[in-house]
Amino acid sequence: MSSNYRNFQNSVPWLILFLEAVFIILFYFLFSADEASGSSISYPAFQDVSHMVIFGFGFFLTFLKRYGFSSTGFNLLITVLGVQCSVLIEGLLVFLLRGTNEGSLKRITKAAMTMTAVVISTGAVLGKTNPVQLILMTVVEIIVFRMSRWINNIFLEVPDNISLMHVHLFGAYFGLAVSSRCSEPLPRSEKNASTPKLDLFSMLGTLFLWVFWPSFNSILALNKRNAIYNTYFALAVSAVSAFVLSALTTKDGRFRMTHIHSAVLAGGVAVGYAAHCIEYPWIAMILGLLASVITILGSYCLQRCLNPVLKIHDTSGVHFTFGLPAVLGALAQVVLFVV
Amino acid sequence: MSSNYRNFQNSVPWLILFLEAVFIILFYFLFSADEASGSSISYPAFQDVSHMVIFGFGFFLTFLKRYGFSSTGFNLLITVLGVQCSVLIEGLLVFLLRGTNEGSLKRITKAAMTMTAVVISTGAVLGKTNPVQLILMTVVEIIVFRMSRWINNIFLEVPDNISLMHVHLFGAYFGLAVSSRCSEPLPRSEKNASTPKLDLFSMLGTLFLWVFWPSFNSILALNKRNAIYNTYFALAVSAVSAFVLSALTTKDGRFRMTHIHSAVLAGGVAVGYAAHCIEYPWIAMILGLLASVITILGSYCLQRCLNPVLKIHDTSGVHFTFGLPAVLGALAQVVLFVV
Amino acid sequence: MSSNYRNFQNSVPWLILFLEAVFIILFYFLFSADEASGSSISYPAFQDVSHMVIFGFGFFLTFLKRYGFSSTGFNLLITVLGVQCSVLIEGLLVFLLRGTNEGSLKRITKAAMTMTAVVISTGAVLGKTNPVQLILMTVVEIIVFRMSRWINNIFLEVPDNISLMHVHLFGAYFGLAVSSRCSEPLPRSEKNASTPKLDLFSMLGTLFLWVFWPSFNSILALNKRNAIYNTYFALAVSAVSAFVLSALTTKDGRFRMTHIHSAVLAGGVAVGYAAHCIEYPWIAMILGLLASVITILGSYCLQRCLNPVLKIHDTSGVHFTFGLPAVLGALAQVVLFVV
Repeated sequence: MSSNYRNFQNSVPWLILFLEAVFIILFYFLFSADEASGSSISYPAFQDVSHMVIFGFGFFLTFLKRYGFSSTGFNLLITVLGVQCSVLIEGLLVFLLRGTNEGSLKRITKAAMTMTAVVISTGAVLGKTNPVQLILMTVVEIIVFRMSRWINNIFLEVPDNISLMHVHLFGAYFGLAVSSRCSEPLPRSEKNASTPKLDLFSMLGTLFLWVFWPSFNSILALNKRNAIYNTYFALAVSAVSAFVLSALTTKDGRFRMTHIHSAVLAGGVAVGYAAHCIEYPWIAMILGLLASVITILGSYCLQRCLNPVLKIHDTSGVHFTFGLPAVLGALAQVVLFVV
Repeated sequence: MSSNYRNFQNSVPWLILFLEAVFIILFYFLFSADEASGSSISYPAFQDVSHMVIFGFGFFLTFLKRYGFSSTGFNLLITVLGVQCSVLIEGLLVFLLRGTNEGSLKRITKAAMTMTAVVISTGAVLGKTNPVQLILMTVVEIIVFRMSRWINNIFLEVPDNISLMHVHLFGAYFGLAVSSRCSEPLPRSEKNASTPKLDLFSMLGTLFLWVFWPSFNSILALNKRNAIYNTYFALAVSAVSAFVLSALTTKDGRFRMTHIHSAVLAGGVAVGYAAHCIEYPWIAMILGLLASVITILGSYCLQRCLNPVLKIHDTSGVHFTFGLPAVLGALAQVVLFVV
Repeated sequence: MSSNYRNFQNSVPWLILFLEAVFIILFYFLFSADEASGSSISYPAFQDVSHMVIFGFGFFLTFLKRYGFSSTGFNLLITVLGVQCSVLIEGLLVFLLRGTNEGSLKRITKAAMTMTAVVISTGAVLGKTNPVQLILMTVVEIIVFRMSRWINNIFLEVPDNISLMHVHLFGAYFGLAVSSRCSEPLPRSEKNASTPKLDLFSMLGTLFLWVFWPSFNSILALNKRNAIYNTYFALAVSAVSAFVLSALTTKDGRFRMTHIHSAVLAGGVAVGYAAHCIEYPWIAMILGLLASVITILGSYCLQRCLNPVLKIHDTSGVHFTFGLPAVLGALAQVVLFVV
């Protein structure tokens, strides 16, 4: 196993170099001069998404002992590879389907949003995959996610801005599926990877995501102001209920930071689909409350009961942090649409 | 005392849950669809204030040994509760006085600015209050601050954007008043709470506040460009004089980070009231210089002489960090108005 | 030497105080009311540059053991002194040459960009200079850089926005020149200064610079969208190749964070001059690749071969981090201009 691991390790730079060469060659053929028409995305909006992916998720996952350092670095590597890959796939589709080009800023903003799915999946498989597998997973996941968006657009007639909000749902369950396949953890890593040690850096990443979440939900929304307003209140209520539930579920009544780490964002994930069309803030608040409850109950049930049975090893708990609130959000959108 | 403390501890989640339920019910009755008229506040401006309150103040107070972790978390809890409470009070006032609604973004931006007062007060009472008291203090302080703004608007004819800049002054002295009431520190906390240990996280929070301060001062100003320009120079000079005074007042001539931590923001606080109407940058610079001098002298005099006599225990030194520069700023505004 | 050092130490506050007094007096005579005409720079653009200088470079240099803390603090002191100095010099030039005033925001944005050169130079001389020398170096460097920009504008007919992009080139080689002069390191500091200990704070600073680099390159560009797009792809490819080269040049095939720390920004530096006029993203990507290769090869060759011969002690490796990519960028601009 050790020599196997070493072989993997040696092939990493060549794999990345090969990918990068392919990317540059495809860029040479696909993208000519600035043929952009009116891009509706401003630079600050792109920056917010870029910050979230590079910083927020980079530090959000630093709480695993062995991954503090490489988490932020590796997150950067996967993100920049994935953004290029995602921009290329869009370019290929435009070329093949003779579609119209989007503005250059809109292109990289959408690519950065797509990367959220990959980064979430990475959280589920950390400590069980080698870098080669992670990079291949990145490329495959981006292609599969683009296909799922295409199916959504064509067959289900879901508009483009809604189909991109599926990133959390898709990322969490894609990660879990990969994780259940490679069920045998690498030697030496299991022991450390399963003992989360939350520190201020992880808190920094969490707060970063919390503060920028309204940007993420509003960036493609038609009614931006509504999306910001509803997302903020959903996040606020889910933060409050994360503290409440954390104090209620621990024996000594103290706040546990692991609970807050995972539940504080649940409201933002759940309200993502419907943020732009909810008319009354109290609906967003109720949604934030439910999302937080589901996350903390989920973290309790899944870790104790379901995961050992299904032999799923979910390293950073993306199932209850992003998966369950996204399911709730999808259900809520259906209910709101029907009512 | 210990069982008493435990009872408090157990009632925390129920108190928060009760508050949150009341908030959601009131939101249900008060805020209907997006009835906003033209909101003059942009999303980046709201984001800057949100960043300052969540990150800046969250990490600014991490320098107390026992509060590194819970400081950032608790700061988040208080902020989200307070923002909801503040938005509700505005909504109630609009409902009762049949006023006109402000835009949704302006509403939460003002609420986030109001929270600055509460966060500053929290700095004065950390380590002496239990969570129940802190949450009650949050609600009471927001109501009292709204009343003080109302008195300012009606009787003193202070315009709304100026009366909101009183947050630092109000926050510091409200915190000191509460602190002098609950003079008996909780067991086990006094020893640790009084030994500040500054580290890079605290520096990170300070720099965050420093960089975003021009946003805070310009957000409601009529002449935004002037406000930004003057605030930047006031902050620059107060940073310079913080270093100078720190080197002069220590025996070995080295910079003491505790001095810089408290004095570097003094210029921004002092220039807050008048930033939009100062015509010459040198006036802002002199104000920054004076604010920094007052802060460092104040930190020396208050900690040695005044506090032991008055039995005020000011945990993070908000009196000299925010209180004294704000008094200076208020005086300066009167002088500038008369001249 | 020790008493000599103490004398230096004691004169620091008086030197700063003297400088600050001169600044305030000159501000009194030079800058009257807001005589600004249309400023083309928005507040968010200024903020991005300010963030980069205060945070990014402040934490980028924290990897030296003894400078973690004072690096961020001292960086703030130098930046605020330098910004005032730079604004004053511009004001003096306008006064003497009877030029037209730029808007107040544009003035401080340009001053903050100029400070990048000083901060990079500081990286080369850390641990070998006392504070007095650093502050004098700041003032001298700003004056010399303004002269070099003036020569560029008048004799080489380089437009103003291009001449400001020379900051990296100028900063790195000015720092090396100063460093080769004061070749004798201070006692007690050499031992520690030469053992870099990278940690998460340094990574935080690096990521901060990486994320904000497109802002820096686009702020004065005529075709902002192109500059952002090209810079992003150049940064992405240089990040990818930094990882590849790091894994190839180390024996065990692992990523070394020191390599990534220095090479990840190379693409942004190299593409700085030409970002606004490159028409095809693949050119920017090739440039990013080459910049990263030059940086890592440079870090290997310079540290082993050249520096010991020339007796240059480059504390934080600014020569290969900023100097060599900037030379490459200048060459690339000439080639692109000719072709």
